[in-house]
Amino acid sequence: MFTKLLVCNRGEIAVRIIRTCRELGIRTVVAHSTADADSLAVRLADEAVCLGPGPAAQSYLSVTAVLYACAKTGADAVHPGYGFLSEDVVFAESCAAAGITFIGPPAALIGLMGDKIAARAAMREAGVPVLPGSDGPVRRMEAAWEVAGRIGFPLVIKAAAGGGGRGISVVTRQGLLEESFHATQAAARALFHDDRVYLEKYVAAARHIEVQMLADAYGTVVHLGERDCSVQRRQQKLVEEAPSPFLTTQGRDALFAAAVRGARRTSFVNAGTFEFLVDEDGKPYFIEMNTRLQVEHPVSEEQTGVDIVEWMIRIAAGEPLPFAQQDVSHSGHSIEVRINAEDFARDWAGSSGRISRLDLPGGPGVRVDTHAHAGYFVPPYYDSLLAKVIVSAPTRDRALRRLDRALGEFRCDGVTTNVDFHRKLLRHNDFTAGTYRLDVVDAVLAEMAPPREENT
Amino acid sequence: MFTKLLVCNRGEIAVRIIRTCRELGIRTVVAHSTADADSLAVRLADEAVCLGPGPAAQSYLSVTAVLYACAKTGADAVHPGYGFLSEDVVFAESCAAAGITFIGPPAALIGLMGDKIAARAAMREAGVPVLPGSDGPVRRMEAAWEVAGRIGFPLVIKAAAGGGGRGISVVTRQGLLEESFHATQAAARALFHDDRVYLEKYVAAARHIEVQMLADAYGTVVHLGERDCSVQRRQQKLVEEAPSPFLTTQGRDALFAAAVRGARRTSFVNAGTFEFLVDEDGKPYFIEMNTRLQVEHPVSEEQTGVDIVEWMIRIAAGEPLPFAQQDVSHSGHSIEVRINAEDFARDWAGSSGRISRLDLPGGPGVRVDTHAHAGYFVPPYYDSLLAKVIVSAPTRDRALRRLDRALGEFRCDGVTTNVDFHRKLLRHNDFTAGTYRLDVVDAVLAEMAPPREENT
Repeated sequence: MFTKLLVCNRGEIAVRIIRTCRELGIRTVVAHSTADADSLAVRLADEAVCLGPGPAAQSYLSVTAVLYACAKTGADAVHPGYGFLSEDVVFAESCAAAGITFIGPPAALIGLMGDKIAARAAMREAGVPVLPGSDGPVRRMEAAWEVAGRIGFPLVIKAAAGGGGRGISVVTRQGLLEESFHATQAAARALFHDDRVYLEKYVAAARHIEVQMLADAYGTVVHLGERDCSVQRRQQKLVEEAPSPFLTTQGRDALFAAAVRGARRTSFVNAGTFEFLVDEDGKPYFIEMNTRLQVEHPVSEEQTGVDIVEWMIRIAAGEPLPFAQQDVSHSGHSIEVRINAEDFARDWAGSSGRISRLDLPGGPGVRVDTHAHAGYFVPPYYDSLLAKVIVSAPTRDRALRRLDRALGEFRCDGVTTNVDFHRKLLRHNDFTAGTYRLDVVDAVLAEMAPPREENT
Repeated sequence: MFTKLLVCNRGEIAVRIIRTCRELGIRTVVAHSTADADSLAVRLADEAVCLGPGPAAQSYLSVTAVLYACAKTGADAVHPGYGFLSEDVVFAESCAAAGITFIGPPAALIGLMGDKIAARAAMREAGVPVLPGSDGPVRRMEAAWEVAGRIGFPLVIKAAAGGGGRGISVVTRQGLLEESFHATQAAARALFHDDRVYLEKYVAAARHIEVQMLADAYGTVVHLGERDCSVQRRQQKLVEEAPSPFLTTQGRDALFAAAVRGARRTSFVNAGTFEFLVDEDGKPYFIEMNTRLQVEHPVSEEQTGVDIVEWMIRIAAGEPLPFAQQDVSHSGHSIEVRINAEDFARDWAGSSGRISRLDLPGGPGVRVDTHAHAGYFVPPYYDSLLAKVIVSAPTRDRALRRLDRALGEFRCDGVTTNVDFHRKLLRHNDFTAGTYRLDVVDAVLAEMAPPREENT
């Protein structure tokens, strides 16, 4: 087992990783920016080392700075969390070259899945259903017209190097194709230095359902069930739940089989997630694989009792999974909501500032993962995730009631949060009934009265 | 189902009851003292009504004030929590007379179990093992000598009206019997206005293990497993865990069978707990039955997924239990520690004062039940329980590590707590090995260095 693990991340996920390390008896180093010097992660870790200034490009995204921090502290493993360097092939390879264990899937798989065109091809070969679309990169307008003619409108143009909702354009009709095609190419070039794009059919009224995978280096592949992540705003997830209220037993089994097939075909090891769109008939289509820990991993932890961070570390240390698929059991219903420091009244702009008071919910069936505390200054540089509230109960109905109860106890003074939005969502018929789809956030927002003056 | 439930209690248990009511859609009233006017329970309840001044005798213990509060608010049910009026026969009967549902076992059972001599007799008749001792009240010294001659020393003298560790004297040798007998009689008279006492054999090196029971009004009786509560200081529990690391399968089955027998014999309904001493050979002896919610009930909730407060309410409303014994499953290991505002360096004196900062532990497998928050003034009038930290994990070893991790995250500025004691206990060999008995707290204290100056 590792003697010292460096966490090159921040926020709640840095705290999350430190917690499991402490329980496993592994010393921790948190590599942080100057803006995070007084964070909870720094307080909870055994050691802390500063990577650089607040903006991520100068700290959390610097491969050099992170490797230097590992060398300086003698860390023999690094956990990248999510975002930042977690799906960076160069970083994963550099760690290996420096003799430091990167905790995540093999660099080759990160590379394959980071190229959405290659991933699509690999999945198709593995017999995993993909959406009708282009067979490879679409470089010229004529090729785009050819594919569009075949799959029809609406369609989606996606950057090969995109993912996680970035580098995506939906094209609703023929007249917009040319403009969108060039714009997406340009955006891809600017964002990823890679202007390859591909086309896929757009599935209206779809759900986003993903499968959490774990695999060791000895051929054991298990899934920890699905998570329904259809509550999204601009491709960013806001709520995740399991089991999906939409899937039938048959649909669920088909989804799991596809994910396991995809994992085996790509020699997947460690933890990762297969994301699917599921259409109105319950048919799944592969979107992408995330080769890292997901924000919403606690949903599956609560469902199965498996500590996913623990197994990421153990698998990276060469341990075999001691359980097989039939040993994984699921109980009750779990829902996670992301509480973001953002102001929906101002187009969801991030809310930075000092938290003067923070009361977190507690009691039965409530888990809170957060780095926030009273006196904490929410820096302006990073994503707005402030806390994850995860509730579990024997039934979905009770979980919804528990979530409402927990959100009612949440109080955060000093920054504006989206708690009110979540409470509205909880009262929306489609969400309550479990019939919601990817457009549910717009429906909730449309129903929301002009927001009052902020009072918390 | 009830439309409005009045909680005549305070602290974490008032919050606990309000949480479940909110999830069940039942309106809540918290009946509080002036000292608790700004408490979390008051903030979370739908309504609040003041019972009287801080000292419990003038508020939480006033049957008249509580009944008046019910009438004033139109509450149709009352939950007494633990302590205060929870095992008061007069209160239970007065509620019934006023047409208000008392949430707990029938008044007759409260009366029977409140008389420890009658309870002992009832259990013996039911075939539940009791300790060798007197057959009824021992009123005179000659009778005490007769029983002592039969059962030997050490022995225990207990007040018939005692319980929960109050009104108990251990007599180690013959020379002390007379003095202890008269002293215990006098104490019983002063404390309970009832000087009846009885004698029992004292079991050295014992463990305190209890069984959580639930029963509906239609004959369904289930147990939710045991809790090992052997970590006690002066008969007050500090840590509770399940499963007991001491019990064998055979010992456990015998314990459950005894508790179910006792429950059936006494027509037990609602929630309650059978407490046993278990000797070195694993033999259980009935001590008492608590006809109310226990402080440590979350341990069983985490083990089984059953919301005990919910079922207390549903059973009181006349609902049948929808599950039988075989439907109750237990998973992993759960431990609760009681974090008290008290200073063990000053003989565990209660610590009153304003909490200036409170950071609670979170993340996987951690539940916190508390009424405390930053800015909260811990009043001097009541018991010192500030928070319960409950951890759950697949194994006992992991639960211990998780508990240590969680306690490391707990920070409370403004009052002194026993967190340091708990962390010492967690490093004590007998506790780690699971071989500890009722004397473990003394062993830990003996090993503790003179306490440092308080720094939190």
